[in-house]
Amino acid sequence: MGTAVKRIILTLCSFFLLSNNLFPQTSPSNSKNNYPAISDTIIRTALTEQTGYEWLKELCDIGPRLSGSEQSMKAIMWAKDKMEKLAIDKVWLQNVMVPKWVRGDVESAQIVSSKKYKGRKLNITAFGGSIATPDEGITAQVIEVKSFDELKKLGDIVKGKIVFYNRAFDNGLVNSFEAYGKAVDQRTTGAIEAAKLGAAASIVRSITSKNDNITHTGVMYYDSLTNKIPHAAIGVQDAEFLSEAIKEEPGLAITIKMNCKKYPDALSYNVIGEITGSEKPEEIIVIGGHFDSWDKGCGAHDDGAPCIQTMEALHLLKKFNIKPKRTIRCVLFINEENGARGGKVYGSFADTAKEKQIAALEADRGAFTPRGFYVTSDSAAINKMQVWLPILNKAHIDWIRPGGSGVDVSFIKNAKALLGFAPDEQRYMDVHHSDNDTFESVHPREMELGTAAITIMAILLSEEL
Amino acid sequence: MGTAVKRIILTLCSFFLLSNNLFPQTSPSNSKNNYPAISDTIIRTALTEQTGYEWLKELCDIGPRLSGSEQSMKAIMWAKDKMEKLAIDKVWLQNVMVPKWVRGDVESAQIVSSKKYKGRKLNITAFGGSIATPDEGITAQVIEVKSFDELKKLGDIVKGKIVFYNRAFDNGLVNSFEAYGKAVDQRTTGAIEAAKLGAAASIVRSITSKNDNITHTGVMYYDSLTNKIPHAAIGVQDAEFLSEAIKEEPGLAITIKMNCKKYPDALSYNVIGEITGSEKPEEIIVIGGHFDSWDKGCGAHDDGAPCIQTMEALHLLKKFNIKPKRTIRCVLFINEENGARGGKVYGSFADTAKEKQIAALEADRGAFTPRGFYVTSDSAAINKMQVWLPILNKAHIDWIRPGGSGVDVSFIKNAKALLGFAPDEQRYMDVHHSDNDTFESVHPREMELGTAAITIMAILLSEEL
Repeated sequence: MGTAVKRIILTLCSFFLLSNNLFPQTSPSNSKNNYPAISDTIIRTALTEQTGYEWLKELCDIGPRLSGSEQSMKAIMWAKDKMEKLAIDKVWLQNVMVPKWVRGDVESAQIVSSKKYKGRKLNITAFGGSIATPDEGITAQVIEVKSFDELKKLGDIVKGKIVFYNRAFDNGLVNSFEAYGKAVDQRTTGAIEAAKLGAAASIVRSITSKNDNITHTGVMYYDSLTNKIPHAAIGVQDAEFLSEAIKEEPGLAITIKMNCKKYPDALSYNVIGEITGSEKPEEIIVIGGHFDSWDKGCGAHDDGAPCIQTMEALHLLKKFNIKPKRTIRCVLFINEENGARGGKVYGSFADTAKEKQIAALEADRGAFTPRGFYVTSDSAAINKMQVWLPILNKAHIDWIRPGGSGVDVSFIKNAKALLGFAPDEQRYMDVHHSDNDTFESVHPREMELGTAAITIMAILLSEEL
Repeated sequence: MGTAVKRIILTLCSFFLLSNNLFPQTSPSNSKNNYPAISDTIIRTALTEQTGYEWLKELCDIGPRLSGSEQSMKAIMWAKDKMEKLAIDKVWLQNVMVPKWVRGDVESAQIVSSKKYKGRKLNITAFGGSIATPDEGITAQVIEVKSFDELKKLGDIVKGKIVFYNRAFDNGLVNSFEAYGKAVDQRTTGAIEAAKLGAAASIVRSITSKNDNITHTGVMYYDSLTNKIPHAAIGVQDAEFLSEAIKEEPGLAITIKMNCKKYPDALSYNVIGEITGSEKPEEIIVIGGHFDSWDKGCGAHDDGAPCIQTMEALHLLKKFNIKPKRTIRCVLFINEENGARGGKVYGSFADTAKEKQIAALEADRGAFTPRGFYVTSDSAAINKMQVWLPILNKAHIDWIRPGGSGVDVSFIKNAKALLGFAPDEQRYMDVHHSDNDTFESVHPREMELGTAAITIMAILLSEEL
């Protein structure tokens, strides 16, 4: 420990001399603003102590954190406790009424009418918000389509059938979020479109970059004008199998059973902790993610680890007694996945509170190796941030680009800048909303380097924006 | 297939109009030089067809490829066959005499003298090139040190002992290659330094970023003036255990047994394939990696997948009938790991051949998500390459920086530029030289995006450097 402290002091000293060259646009007036040295210290500490990675293990041991679930409440109390132990200036819970939907103990799909494949089971999982099937299930012929246009052209044929949306995730796109965006309508509004034509139920090829048979859940919608039908994901390999089987036997029918259920809204919380600004306490820099997850895996990348990265930022600021000019506030928003109620509540709070939201940074793209930040702001602010790149680059931030931030912070009006942390996205859609999203899928160095990037950005936003 | 071709044509057409804006510094004179369109096609094809990833599976099924081994010969013939099937202009083998060292079937370490830990085994693996122990093993007290300075200060105490180098990989460094570089002397020259003081053997904490107990091998050296002693890696967790155990019982002794053996040099080969330049066939752009590996895992990241990325570049050029101005040559160098004989032979060939080596790009940092290229060249050439970044960025190349290329291409004299492909390095040292370096550790999208980056860079080097 003595050696570690000495090393930090040496690092700090060595950068006093260099900083004017390295970062001339914001030449430091005191040691607090010696960004290169502070950054090096933050990076080394995050990578070697791996506090956040240890916290992630604890969080994953609690289980997944679907809004309104018992585990989500345990996780909220765990996070509040962790923040309180940091002895930061303020920790509180913000009441949020969240939707409560519970997956049942029955989820099955089986081919029941087929010469060749009768009895063959399919991996299936209800989408969040789906109604259940009757106890005896829904048995119907399967009709495969790849788009709503194709579905509409089928017209009356769809009546009483199970619509099978089988448009694949496009692995040809470099940006996996773009590929996700081009497939996700099948999940979000697929039940509505199928029900409009009288379908009995609908199933969707899992939206994932990975060629496995794990099901990927996610939010789905009904509308008030259309009949509600059960809506579920099946594994990619089963989708490919089913598609071939239907070609062989067009009359093939399956039975699906699900006993998921919607309950009345439940009381839940945003968890908030802050280090109060030393000069401008009423000016707020928000950093955070969404603390709820789907009920698959443990929501490690989505969005447990990123939430912890922002909690760990407070830990690092506190550890090195960094006193930001503005208030740096970590907000763990509840219910992004199926309602964004936490984001909305915080947005309303921000509207009325006697304080000014200067910038808000959301981390909701996994905890992979850092690459950049997307920023929604005017070009002057973005240009200013790009001047910080030599510092941020120490934590592998290679770019700052105009772009979207995150669902939760988008409810904060009038902030000078909204930011989205952008780690590398090549592996994200392998794990997203599925049992693949485990503690083991997070790499400690990748996660901790992300923590460092977020911490450094938070400091710069506080001191320089 | 029809749809795929149509899509490619559409993509190509749509970029005709855009390319002058997107890439004004090298405005295309014909479709061949419409880099944005060509790049998009290459990226999409690599990501969707994943030809290289499939090849990697085949290569890994052959086994690891230590120089002089039967598997290395099988792999060489496999690669030659693959290249020949591409129907490129020329495929040949270049004779290389390589050292042959074979790990034995005995590798063990056990605590033999200890009240508390007698009988406890340690994960051990000989470093490449180590001599064997006598059949009955070497039994001696263990002396822990963290540096050669510390060792030298011990002086006579070392005589007859087993030196235990236990300086940890520094996870506090962002660049894992830098951390590796700061620990690797224990492996490379540790036996020499220990033997100078009369040690009976030496063992080294595995050089890895991962906290597991897998042993990591690698090259080691003897010198002609110093006695040869057995030299081996132990797992990180066993190293930590052993360090604690020695503190409890300073007299603790272990027995190590290894029956590895050195054989006479063996005939092996560089595998070379090329697409001859349409305008300047005598001007050569080399792309390649080293085809040998250590005898642990299957050498997937080191350096199987990167070799395949450069083979796949030829496949993609051929598939889209791209006729480069200069010759693009893939060289799979043999024996980088323990001799660099392949690199030396190719270097000598380049000295005397009636052709001019313009640039050489080595891929030997794993097949993780692409980040940049290091370039050894004059600043004019580097500046020129940086102008290409808008194109390369399509495949997630964010930077081109002055820096080292690779061991093998460093033997090519007088080339205008030597380049090193730089994927993200956070996970590399988890797998390097160990049983962790498996097919499963390579992610298909990360690998194929790297293939695209290398292919695009090869085209640009051929046409624009």
